[in-house]
Amino acid sequence: MAPETPSVTGAVRAGVPEHGRVPKYYTVKTALAGLLDELGEGGLLPTERDLAVRFEVSRETVRQAIRELLIEGRVRRQGRGTVVAGPKLLQPLSLASYTEGVRRQGRTPGRRVVTCEMLPADPELAAALDIRPGGDVLHLERVLLADNDRVGLESTYLSDARFPRLLDTFDPSTSLYAYLRERLGVRFAEAEERIETVLATPREALLIGTSPALPMLLMNRISRDDDDRPIERVRGLYRGDRFSFTTVLR
Amino acid sequence: MAPETPSVTGAVRAGVPEHGRVPKYYTVKTALAGLLDELGEGGLLPTERDLAVRFEVSRETVRQAIRELLIEGRVRRQGRGTVVAGPKLLQPLSLASYTEGVRRQGRTPGRRVVTCEMLPADPELAAALDIRPGGDVLHLERVLLADNDRVGLESTYLSDARFPRLLDTFDPSTSLYAYLRERLGVRFAEAEERIETVLATPREALLIGTSPALPMLLMNRISRDDDDRPIERVRGLYRGDRFSFTTVLR
Repeated sequence: MAPETPSVTGAVRAGVPEHGRVPKYYTVKTALAGLLDELGEGGLLPTERDLAVRFEVSRETVRQAIRELLIEGRVRRQGRGTVVAGPKLLQPLSLASYTEGVRRQGRTPGRRVVTCEMLPADPELAAALDIRPGGDVLHLERVLLADNDRVGLESTYLSDARFPRLLDTFDPSTSLYAYLRERLGVRFAEAEERIETVLATPREALLIGTSPALPMLLMNRISRDDDDRPIERVRGLYRGDRFSFTTVLR
Repeated sequence: MAPETPSVTGAVRAGVPEHGRVPKYYTVKTALAGLLDELGEGGLLPTERDLAVRFEVSRETVRQAIRELLIEGRVRRQGRGTVVAGPKLLQPLSLASYTEGVRRQGRTPGRRVVTCEMLPADPELAAALDIRPGGDVLHLERVLLADNDRVGLESTYLSDARFPRLLDTFDPSTSLYAYLRERLGVRFAEAEERIETVLATPREALLIGTSPALPMLLMNRISRDDDDRPIERVRGLYRGDRFSFTTVLR
């Protein structure tokens, strides 16, 4: 089980006594967080107007508080209202695929193909895939789904020399890892990953269906097989309001 | 070496041809990104006024582009100007401490103690530390420094029953891991971690010296020893504009 923030840290985190100036929107946000717990997942928030009256603040102040709760994935829009969101997806950092991670949480994974193209490798990509610069690279870009919600956008780069005519037999709307393992006998032995937070670009926001500039978790990965040969270069972008990564270090 | 985004993905990421409407600020941001490469780390950006003239947009549009570059850590404020930022810190996800991770990158780690208090464990924290609810817990809250820059805020919770009178001999401005290992012979065997992105609270922003609502990387961790006994519960908050996590999965 992944560690959760205990409420004691929450209290420490929220308290601002030593500075003595808590911005109004933040007071409203803290009060709303309590309300979310009472309402429970799927519960409908009162309107901005009602909240402004209840907390005796302007509607803009309420809006700012709700904007932060939206960015953090604690509430979500539903129709014209705002409801309490469910917990974030817990994606294990592992050699397993997105598909397996989502299934493990009892949700249905899916992928929607956005781009499927052959590119010449620039020097950096060539080095990552251990091919000559300019060599053919298959680029698959797919929107990641969980129960039909769009939760991320993944670009995978594969050497055409290593996996020739992949698309003759691989259906890009399915799990690439399952295909590589089961059909081609590829063994995933190691992956180097780098995780950071970035803002969604306008194009990414459109594809994933978020507002632009939403904080995203960006993961860059190079996977290798038993012989230390690169299998793929992946750039995965996951909604910061819907994802968390978990790992067990030893 | 951690994988970097190859420029080919950069191009794919930025292009919005299939939608045909690129917000103005984003065009400016893309152009500025090119300018940053030319200027190099530490290079001074032209003023907002000059950039507005150069790109034929309003100063507010320039401001929005720079705001995103600031959030992503590609530029930083220096005095009254804005300069090209250095690369993000690469913090390995490992049982090693923050101190070791920063040293490995040739930077000087430091810690500034903010809170040092004894707390009664709430049920969740008690479960994490395997003590009875209400049992004494030492809470250490420290601002993390790299070359005197404030880059994060870490709260560590330790059972007082397990580590009685720790502060008699441990200097909280030094590495806790080094102390536990070298002085108490504690062996770190395993850590469960959960990583996500959250917004800085006003208090956290003040302590770390960022603007409020900056996206942060939040890491929750429980470390265990050889006998599977909990050592610590940690809540680490790292500046999203300055940190990335790296890992090698096997």
